[in-house]
Amino acid sequence: MSQPSSAVSIADIARLAGVGVGTASRALNNAHGVAPATRRKILEVAERMSYVVSPAAASLARGTTGRIALVIPHPSRWFFSEMTEAVTGVLRAAEIDVLLYHLTNSEDRRQFFSRLPARRNVDAVLVVASRVGPLEQERLSLMGVRIVAAGGPSAVYPFVRIDDYNASRQAMNHLLFLGHRRIAMLQAIDPDEPDANSQRSLAYFDSMREAGLEVDESLVMRADWNPENGAQSMAALLTLREPPTAVFAYSDEIALGAIRTLRRAGLRIPQDISIIGIDDHPLAALTDLTTIRQPVKEQGRRAAQMLVDLLQGRETEPAVTMPTELIVRSTTAPPSR
Amino acid sequence: MSQPSSAVSIADIARLAGVGVGTASRALNNAHGVAPATRRKILEVAERMSYVVSPAAASLARGTTGRIALVIPHPSRWFFSEMTEAVTGVLRAAEIDVLLYHLTNSEDRRQFFSRLPARRNVDAVLVVASRVGPLEQERLSLMGVRIVAAGGPSAVYPFVRIDDYNASRQAMNHLLFLGHRRIAMLQAIDPDEPDANSQRSLAYFDSMREAGLEVDESLVMRADWNPENGAQSMAALLTLREPPTAVFAYSDEIALGAIRTLRRAGLRIPQDISIIGIDDHPLAALTDLTTIRQPVKEQGRRAAQMLVDLLQGRETEPAVTMPTELIVRSTTAPPSR
Repeated sequence: MSQPSSAVSIADIARLAGVGVGTASRALNNAHGVAPATRRKILEVAERMSYVVSPAAASLARGTTGRIALVIPHPSRWFFSEMTEAVTGVLRAAEIDVLLYHLTNSEDRRQFFSRLPARRNVDAVLVVASRVGPLEQERLSLMGVRIVAAGGPSAVYPFVRIDDYNASRQAMNHLLFLGHRRIAMLQAIDPDEPDANSQRSLAYFDSMREAGLEVDESLVMRADWNPENGAQSMAALLTLREPPTAVFAYSDEIALGAIRTLRRAGLRIPQDISIIGIDDHPLAALTDLTTIRQPVKEQGRRAAQMLVDLLQGRETEPAVTMPTELIVRSTTAPPSR
Repeated sequence: MSQPSSAVSIADIARLAGVGVGTASRALNNAHGVAPATRRKILEVAERMSYVVSPAAASLARGTTGRIALVIPHPSRWFFSEMTEAVTGVLRAAEIDVLLYHLTNSEDRRQFFSRLPARRNVDAVLVVASRVGPLEQERLSLMGVRIVAAGGPSAVYPFVRIDDYNASRQAMNHLLFLGHRRIAMLQAIDPDEPDANSQRSLAYFDSMREAGLEVDESLVMRADWNPENGAQSMAALLTLREPPTAVFAYSDEIALGAIRTLRRAGLRIPQDISIIGIDDHPLAALTDLTTIRQPVKEQGRRAAQMLVDLLQGRETEPAVTMPTELIVRSTTAPPSR
């Protein structure tokens, strides 16, 4: 008689999957030598069973692997690679191993979180710039697996982030103070989470409205985070009858894409068009790009430290918001026309 | 009577370290709840013992963790983050977990490799752009832990790389064909492995010699991989009585640093000075930088696939050298003076 609160054993899973205990164990431990179809079946059974895993079994697993999972959508993008470097630095000092999960989209993450309880291979999860849904939170909580987030939206679990709304306001205030009125936005959208950065856009629209300016929708370009899209969006803006005098880009990489288009068109920056990004990417300094600096390594280090504190039974802050600041370089100036 | 070929048990290690078996097990499994000093002692004993671990015990451990270690010196640098993304993509598809070890220098790596046998937590190690010494190789081999390398020097274990000598020759041939005779080199040195990229420099000196040109040592600038050093080295070159007409940089990031200095000095690229890098960093396309493209993701994917093959008992190539190619953009042209 299975009851919702009873512990699930490997024998139960093996029986339900119609395999031997050894096979079930190997599949759950992610070991070699299990046929893919069999492994899938066993994991499916374990996933189903994980809903009713008991807190007692969970506490057994808690704090015993010495490993955490670092969940990153795009390891090769600057923001995520900075985070990874910072997080691994802190965790290595604490002698905690880092399993890196490169989970590009929400379906990848859903699969990961649904299998995690069955695998029981980490004590905690650090998610970077992505969201853990309520169902996944509940499962992890039942397993005693802690969650900390860095660089993403605010959450019910502990997190470290910047105030995206305020960062955009800083950029827009700078352009408005310089006297720009026709300001374009190069908005980046994660195809998987179209609302994830809406705070930055909200700030653009609020800033324009509060300055008494009407938003011209043809000045708002939407694409994903790829810098090449910055180049293309800028080209589209140059086809307008009245192009913008200033451009606010969601990231420095997008701004650098836009700058290439402006250079190729023989336009001078900032005399013809001003441009500002967000991040303070190392190449922003090299290309003299005005930007809103966010402390990426610091967010990663702080989040990793919060995780260490939680695993070692100490209290930690529920939420940390780190400051951003305007770095004025040579790509912004008052409009000349 | 302990013999060199006998298997070491946790009980042996516990006894020699003067602790209980449970404590030794927790320390060796990197679990929480062991005092740092105790853990250190246990690991030291295990390290000593690991020299005599038996192949029989090793084969038990082989292929059973479902994890590999990815060893990366600088996760936040473009080259390494591309590698990480490619490697994790392939391994995720093969359902192999990746423990990320951010090991900055050779001492970090030495510690890691000396503890790895005691931890027995991976089936294989993928090292990126670093070397595994003979002693470490022997230990891993005794443990049945496979090694594959990507993006580093050639080795006795399987590896994927580019031909650094040839990549530099391609860059130098391009500059020489354009008619440059006064060519500077912005050489990048890993402080930890000063010889690691000497092939690129060798090609510079050979190219100059074969072109009948004397090398002016004041045109060779040595610094580490930081782009800011590219900016500073370029500034130093501009203090010469006769600055170069062309610059060969070890990487695109270093070249971009140099370009900032040239722009600030009001010099035109390529009319006043030509510049070429190596990599084809995404920002090389955005800044119209001429470069020697190396396939970074492809190196990572191939190395990861070699590792999967080895773990699944298949043969793999001992060595793969991937091609590099000249990408002509707008930063190189014949000298105008």
